[in-house]
Amino acid sequence: MRERIAEILSWYESDNPGTRANLVRILGHGRLGGTGRLVILPVDQGFEHGPARSFAPNPAGYNPLYHFQLALEAGCSAYAAPLGFLEAGAARYAGEIPLILKANNHDVLHSDRDPLSAVTGGVRQALRLGCAAIGFTIYPGSSESRIMYEQIRALAEEAKEVGLGVVVWSYPRGSELSKEGETGIDVVAYAAQIAAQLGAHIIKVKLPSAHIEQAEAKKVYEKQPIPVSTLADRVRHVIQSAFDGRRIVIFSGGARVDDEKIFEETRAIRDGGGFGSIIGRNSFQRPRADALRFLDTVMKIYSGEMK
Amino acid sequence: MRERIAEILSWYESDNPGTRANLVRILGHGRLGGTGRLVILPVDQGFEHGPARSFAPNPAGYNPLYHFQLALEAGCSAYAAPLGFLEAGAARYAGEIPLILKANNHDVLHSDRDPLSAVTGGVRQALRLGCAAIGFTIYPGSSESRIMYEQIRALAEEAKEVGLGVVVWSYPRGSELSKEGETGIDVVAYAAQIAAQLGAHIIKVKLPSAHIEQAEAKKVYEKQPIPVSTLADRVRHVIQSAFDGRRIVIFSGGARVDDEKIFEETRAIRDGGGFGSIIGRNSFQRPRADALRFLDTVMKIYSGEMK
Amino acid sequence: MRERIAEILSWYESDNPGTRANLVRILGHGRLGGTGRLVILPVDQGFEHGPARSFAPNPAGYNPLYHFQLALEAGCSAYAAPLGFLEAGAARYAGEIPLILKANNHDVLHSDRDPLSAVTGGVRQALRLGCAAIGFTIYPGSSESRIMYEQIRALAEEAKEVGLGVVVWSYPRGSELSKEGETGIDVVAYAAQIAAQLGAHIIKVKLPSAHIEQAEAKKVYEKQPIPVSTLADRVRHVIQSAFDGRRIVIFSGGARVDDEKIFEETRAIRDGGGFGSIIGRNSFQRPRADALRFLDTVMKIYSGEMK
Amino acid sequence: MRERIAEILSWYESDNPGTRANLVRILGHGRLGGTGRLVILPVDQGFEHGPARSFAPNPAGYNPLYHFQLALEAGCSAYAAPLGFLEAGAARYAGEIPLILKANNHDVLHSDRDPLSAVTGGVRQALRLGCAAIGFTIYPGSSESRIMYEQIRALAEEAKEVGLGVVVWSYPRGSELSKEGETGIDVVAYAAQIAAQLGAHIIKVKLPSAHIEQAEAKKVYEKQPIPVSTLADRVRHVIQSAFDGRRIVIFSGGARVDDEKIFEETRAIRDGGGFGSIIGRNSFQRPRADALRFLDTVMKIYSGEMK
Amino acid sequence: MRERIAEILSWYESDNPGTRANLVRILGHGRLGGTGRLVILPVDQGFEHGPARSFAPNPAGYNPLYHFQLALEAGCSAYAAPLGFLEAGAARYAGEIPLILKANNHDVLHSDRDPLSAVTGGVRQALRLGCAAIGFTIYPGSSESRIMYEQIRALAEEAKEVGLGVVVWSYPRGSELSKEGETGIDVVAYAAQIAAQLGAHIIKVKLPSAHIEQAEAKKVYEKQPIPVSTLADRVRHVIQSAFDGRRIVIFSGGARVDDEKIFEETRAIRDGGGFGSIIGRNSFQRPRADALRFLDTVMKIYSGEMK
Repeated sequence: MRERIAEILSWYESDNPGTRANLVRILGHGRLGGTGRLVILPVDQGFEHGPARSFAPNPAGYNPLYHFQLALEAGCSAYAAPLGFLEAGAARYAGEIPLILKANNHDVLHSDRDPLSAVTGGVRQALRLGCAAIGFTIYPGSSESRIMYEQIRALAEEAKEVGLGVVVWSYPRGSELSKEGETGIDVVAYAAQIAAQLGAHIIKVKLPSAHIEQAEAKKVYEKQPIPVSTLADRVRHVIQSAFDGRRIVIFSGGARVDDEKIFEETRAIRDGGGFGSIIGRNSFQRPRADALRFLDTVMKIYSGEMK
Repeated sequence: MRERIAEILSWYESDNPGTRANLVRILGHGRLGGTGRLVILPVDQGFEHGPARSFAPNPAGYNPLYHFQLALEAGCSAYAAPLGFLEAGAARYAGEIPLILKANNHDVLHSDRDPLSAVTGGVRQALRLGCAAIGFTIYPGSSESRIMYEQIRALAEEAKEVGLGVVVWSYPRGSELSKEGETGIDVVAYAAQIAAQLGAHIIKVKLPSAHIEQAEAKKVYEKQPIPVSTLADRVRHVIQSAFDGRRIVIFSGGARVDDEKIFEETRAIRDGGGFGSIIGRNSFQRPRADALRFLDTVMKIYSGEMK
Repeated sequence: MRERIAEILSWYESDNPGTRANLVRILGHGRLGGTGRLVILPVDQGFEHGPARSFAPNPAGYNPLYHFQLALEAGCSAYAAPLGFLEAGAARYAGEIPLILKANNHDVLHSDRDPLSAVTGGVRQALRLGCAAIGFTIYPGSSESRIMYEQIRALAEEAKEVGLGVVVWSYPRGSELSKEGETGIDVVAYAAQIAAQLGAHIIKVKLPSAHIEQAEAKKVYEKQPIPVSTLADRVRHVIQSAFDGRRIVIFSGGARVDDEKIFEETRAIRDGGGFGSIIGRNSFQRPRADALRFLDTVMKIYSGEMK
Repeated sequence: MRERIAEILSWYESDNPGTRANLVRILGHGRLGGTGRLVILPVDQGFEHGPARSFAPNPAGYNPLYHFQLALEAGCSAYAAPLGFLEAGAARYAGEIPLILKANNHDVLHSDRDPLSAVTGGVRQALRLGCAAIGFTIYPGSSESRIMYEQIRALAEEAKEVGLGVVVWSYPRGSELSKEGETGIDVVAYAAQIAAQLGAHIIKVKLPSAHIEQAEAKKVYEKQPIPVSTLADRVRHVIQSAFDGRRIVIFSGGARVDDEKIFEETRAIRDGGGFGSIIGRNSFQRPRADALRFLDTVMKIYSGEMK
Repeated sequence: MRERIAEILSWYESDNPGTRANLVRILGHGRLGGTGRLVILPVDQGFEHGPARSFAPNPAGYNPLYHFQLALEAGCSAYAAPLGFLEAGAARYAGEIPLILKANNHDVLHSDRDPLSAVTGGVRQALRLGCAAIGFTIYPGSSESRIMYEQIRALAEEAKEVGLGVVVWSYPRGSELSKEGETGIDVVAYAAQIAAQLGAHIIKVKLPSAHIEQAEAKKVYEKQPIPVSTLADRVRHVIQSAFDGRRIVIFSGGARVDDEKIFEETRAIRDGGGFGSIIGRNSFQRPRADALRFLDTVMKIYSGEMK
């Protein structure tokens, strides 16, 4: 098992020992520790969508301590949340689970077709709270993307100097992308590439569809051709697009859906060479026992204990 | 009594002893000291609405010393004001009452549907004037909200490093919110959540109505369902939305109204688990003796001496 | 006489000895020294309106040394000017008269209904030139007012730390104010309040008319009622609006007008409790001997030597 | 051969020994080392055009290590890439080939007629990764060009202080330029001049056409007249426009085209006094063996081994 | 002769010895050294208009060394150019002629009625290159003028602290000025005043016409009246407008014109009390021998050797 971790680490040898140690902490934690696979619990929906939409389905989730406990009991690799949620539990759960400070956030009290999140946390705060990494969302395709790229550039530079890891949520959005295009395979692969070029250690993208958004890209996908008909194919292409597999790429779950659908997707991620999942609403929007069972299954699929 | 303070402090154990000491100073001061309830006197209306509209009804209020005295005599937990008002009395009343420097302000000499306040004070000035905390207004829903979130992020980071508390006024406003929506229960609960996620120690919101503004939220409020028919219900939901009661949330009084209405609201705040009130115009826009009687009643309701 | 100065100083006890010493320097200088009254000579019109419009009526004024000499001979309390004008004479007249560096300026080579001045000087330059204070113009009512408030906040914080005084010119302007509204009593009183809340030590406003601009304010002025029928009444209300007389407020002269009109205004300022005048064009746009006679009369009215 | 390098270095004697050493490293490396000619491999297309469009034609290119190896084996003078691609291989290939950190990037997920790239890397990162120079794209003609000029000014100042070289990609684009105008001889010559005036050590421009875009320029080209009918003529004029040949100017290859066309262009660059080529897609979008043969021919043309 | 220099220096006694030494260096250099008159060679046209329009008429000018040599041989007082041009020769010609780093630049690849130049150089670079002063262009009348005023304020503050001189090119432009108005006497006089108030040591303006642009100014010019019918009158008025002759004001030559016209203008500058000329295109857009003869005549007019 340590061999796989050593292999993954070999991709990050430009980083200092502090950053590599924090990546090892995340890769070594929880039920999937040492497998090279990850399941991360992210809880920023209170900020991003509002508290009732996020926590009313399972009101225990209003309490920030709940999510620390859930991530711990489920054996997640790390727990990611905005400043306030981390401040509320970082002292009590100090050292028990790798934390990722979600350093920018966005709410839905006003609309914007070309979104730009607010920077709500920083490297000094991540250090103060004992985090292993910072997390940051970019919206490639937004007319404001330049600003986000420059923000993560500055934060990542600072984080790497003090030994933190950098996790980038790369979510295409913007006035020139169709809704379908946001998860089109060409666009998601591009988003993974951008995050990798910006220096992310861990990249989070949405699961791609077979839709191809950009005309110039379409020509290439058809000419070569690049297999994108199955989800595993598409995962494989995204992984390839992130430095030919030399960057950790994980996939997000999105809104609550049928469990079987998620298990199916998890298999596709695994079979396509994906490194894991980041599952928020499907984890905390159900009773704890149910959530533990659900995450147990997801992890078994990744570990290979379950088909 | 100290147990309640200890319980409240346990929610803030990510903060340094300096900040926790300042929270204790506020929670321990005045007639409600040690109860876990707060009544704060805020006087920024001279800047926000103009001097005549604010002080002509009780001209003693033109004098900045008046408000220090009023807060002291009434046994308020703290006094919050902009830079100029604090500079005018901070030396004379040094150490007599916890001060909160209101660090941003807005005037009404020009209109803006998507408001953005000016940053008019900072952490160095708060320290120089012996303040216990800084105060800051955010307008969730404003198209400028990103800027305010980033401003408070920087100010709060600096304040926490030097041992100050952080009080956030979270007032939804903006071109996409209806007037009714600004105090709709979903929007107020969301505003409380955002302030908590931004790292506020004390959150000030307006009392919510039963109106639900956002369509996506409405579905959830109806489906679960979330009780919002009485004011106490709504206060309870707002408290829940601020980390399940693990953040101090207080409610603002608004414009001058009938006293009985305020006492009724105070009971609802108390019964719904609210932590107190921040009462400006209803305190200082009447003769001092009348104001002292009025605040005495409010505090008795919170302390339980009065039903 | 020293008692009045001591009384005035008692309003500024949040300031450090350096700043208080500079306020004493201004209050103690010239013919009105020690009376608590001030007459300041400001010469920024070369920048603000152009050289010919400013100096052609009395060409001696093209020479920057002229104004130092005029302020000295007339016994003014201080001389205020932009960087260039001060640089041109600060060495020759070092220590002879308190200087105020006008730290922002605006020209009329392009129009703007919502003006924003350029910051053209700073605290380091004020120190280098031996100034007692910095001066800064804000335009409440301008859609750019937020930027100016934040600029003076930063400059004032720095100035106060190094022992300088802060003089704020508060001139309402902006696309939503009527021309008449710029000097309406409600608007001028509001402008004085804003400057005071921003931390100004000395506030300069225009003489107000009896016009009331804002509907919400009108209700209050009529209901209480607030006397504004005579100029002395209005001066009194402006003084009250600047912390109930606990901030030094002086009034500007504006364009060249008939001398008797100015003497009449001076009496109203004096009788309404105003602290003095800042008189530019009416001083330097006439021959020196005439200007000295004119200023002598103004000062005699303030000192009480003349009715 | 050292004489030519010494001659080139004499143009840069305002630079410190650190920067001159890095220029020598680039000029001395690879097959053309010491000739005063350069062939640089740039791989930023993954960011600029997307991964599939860039790497699907030769999937080995998805792997960042591939390009280090290709540049090494082909005997290129340097390898230029964005942060992520360099981080992925800088440790493994430390010291083996001069690296250029491409410090700004742009993607095509949204359109902009007046482009502005995001700053994605900096001088500290270039030093951390052992680079010899930073690279930066400016778009003269863009309404945002002012911002880019100020960005490179700051980056170049910092780079020169720590002994790095500065390579500027100068690509005219913008809403007022016709498509043809972007490579018009007057515009390309102007772009080379601007890069030189901004302090670039090495300038990269596109090969110019005989089109003349600007009316004012056209008069001069016709009056003097300036020979621009052959490609070698035009290269000569661009070199002249970059300080009369006293700055290193190289030319870019653009999209994949017929090899013979490139060899023809290479001869024109050589004969017109150009310093070399920067060839991305034509190098890495074909199998490695083919690419090595192709680059071998290009270098032979430059070295004179081949006509 | 030294008396005139001493007199000029007396106007700058707020400056530190370092800055005064650099002004002496400029005033003491070349054929007009010690006369109090200046002729400066500026070469920023390569950036501002493009290389062919600037240098094709005399191709020797493509070479940056040419201009150093020309300025030296002609006995100019100083040589002013952008960063790149200075970097290319500052080491070779170290200490031979005072250099002025032109710290902002603008190109014509896109149009702007309200121009704003890019800051392309700074004080650290001026020091590194051994310059005597920095040069900076402002466009009074541009809606972006506020930004330029704040840029030069910061640069000038820094320059003066390290002993450099400050030269300001003050060129009225902007959407509200007519083409004729850009050189109208009222506007040019105003531009000179603004530069002086911003703290310039040396001011460069265009030669004014008798046109009066601004209605408010016209009244004053007619009422007083101010003589503006001859060019010498107008030069005299501009000098008066720059602190009554207590600032060095020089005049620019503009595009290539007939030599006699320039000699005529030079006499008018001399007779009106102007301090000299800054002559670019008329100097370097002709063969060297011709240029030397031409500049010789200009200097003889200034020195009085020629009528």
